[in-house]
Amino acid sequence: MSGRTAVQNAELALLLEVTGTPKPGNVDRERDFEALRFEHFMAGAVGARPGLALAADGSAVGHAFERAVAGMADQSAGNTQFGALLVLAPLVAAASEGELTPSGADSVVRETTVDDAAEFYRAFEHVDVAVDDPPAGMEPLDVRRGSDAISALEERGLTLFDIMARSADVDGIAAEWVGEFARVFDAAESILAAHGPVPDRASRVFVELLAGEVDTFVVTRNGREAAEEVTRRAGAVLDGEEDATDLAEELVARDINPGTTADLVAGALFVALERGLVV
Amino acid sequence: MSGRTAVQNAELALLLEVTGTPKPGNVDRERDFEALRFEHFMAGAVGARPGLALAADGSAVGHAFERAVAGMADQSAGNTQFGALLVLAPLVAAASEGELTPSGADSVVRETTVDDAAEFYRAFEHVDVAVDDPPAGMEPLDVRRGSDAISALEERGLTLFDIMARSADVDGIAAEWVGEFARVFDAAESILAAHGPVPDRASRVFVELLAGEVDTFVVTRNGREAAEEVTRRAGAVLDGEEDATDLAEELVARDINPGTTADLVAGALFVALERGLVV
Repeated sequence: MSGRTAVQNAELALLLEVTGTPKPGNVDRERDFEALRFEHFMAGAVGARPGLALAADGSAVGHAFERAVAGMADQSAGNTQFGALLVLAPLVAAASEGELTPSGADSVVRETTVDDAAEFYRAFEHVDVAVDDPPAGMEPLDVRRGSDAISALEERGLTLFDIMARSADVDGIAAEWVGEFARVFDAAESILAAHGPVPDRASRVFVELLAGEVDTFVVTRNGREAAEEVTRRAGAVLDGEEDATDLAEELVARDINPGTTADLVAGALFVALERGLVV
Repeated sequence: MSGRTAVQNAELALLLEVTGTPKPGNVDRERDFEALRFEHFMAGAVGARPGLALAADGSAVGHAFERAVAGMADQSAGNTQFGALLVLAPLVAAASEGELTPSGADSVVRETTVDDAAEFYRAFEHVDVAVDDPPAGMEPLDVRRGSDAISALEERGLTLFDIMARSADVDGIAAEWVGEFARVFDAAESILAAHGPVPDRASRVFVELLAGEVDTFVVTRNGREAAEEVTRRAGAVLDGEEDATDLAEELVARDINPGTTADLVAGALFVALERGLVV
């Protein structure tokens, strides 16, 4: 068993996630977007570490997340791993409490407070994150308002878990928060059960997750039709009817980036490392 | 200016070093050796961090180095960044003292003790490092003896600086230790003066360093003739007479790995990051 701490495993998970290739539509070891390159993810992972360490040390999850995002953003490309950190912060907290299980992670997120929600909103001030318009009646809570939304949040007494619950049907990370991180834990077991180099396993589980559900980040940026096409074609890769590398090239060229699925892979790699995955 | 600490910059330097491509003969973003792959360097960098943090916190350089190597070795490929850590440990110490200059680094290494030398020998017990036979009369101090050599070391009262001075003519890292890290600081300035993505600058400075002096790791593993050929052909790359990527493919195929030059690049990236290099 490795001697790495939970914080080290979280950081390594971020690095291994971006190393896995091909991960169609994502920055990976072999592909960059023009202004979002591999090295920005390296700096993002290193920068996020102090925030992840707060999560491990028992700080509030919202505060740890906000600090992790602030550190992640200390590179020139802006948002690299916002969603991945939103997955990792509660998982690192659960691991540090000795409960890195679906129910342990569920306890962590259900115990979040209004202050955690306020920190979540503050985190949006560090980077531009592509999000949808809020549902009717939720305009005062639009995350794009950043800190300006905090008073509305406090008036309504909404915790970070409450905020996630309101987005769970349109955001794949929020769905994990309210669903015991089911896809993350399943993907971790797939990684552990697989063989071969870890980045190859990350690539495989990425395609499996992509084929399983539409990527909500693609829905937001490219529309539902594009997201459904990506899901269908990931399935075709699994069936051997389409080549993963060709699909990767095409999606990068079309600026279709299934970032939420990558975020889930980062979470899954963390759980797998904590459970003994050997690099 | 980035808010990263010296320890974060050291870790990021390790990650950026292996990301730069092509770096002929090295593992890089596009090339692996069969049992030494990119992800092992990711885990090596993450694992080395606690040792680097000791160097930043004022621990003895030898102890910090030994701990960094122990953490680095917590992956399945063995030695990934032994030499790079031997460069980084004193540079991180110098940076933390506010003196990341040739003379500041020189002070750090000249202040090393017999205990630092003993820790250096202990570090060899964590990994297999390719080294030459020791010079005549130095057999009791063969680093391959690990801790068994420590009594000989203590009898002779040799500090870690003394040990390095005895190897400076056959080891490129030792030459830096006794030469104010001249090549590292020069390469840092080349990186800062260049343009474009940081990994591309790392690749360029790697070829420049390789063309400048024979890589002592290649001398040890492949012989002087091979090392001189590599130096000559790196020069041909700089002159536009040979293609860097073709040379990279050939050297990997011939198992010629200019690892010492890569170690210097890691040190140079660290200095450049500390001096404001933007990723």
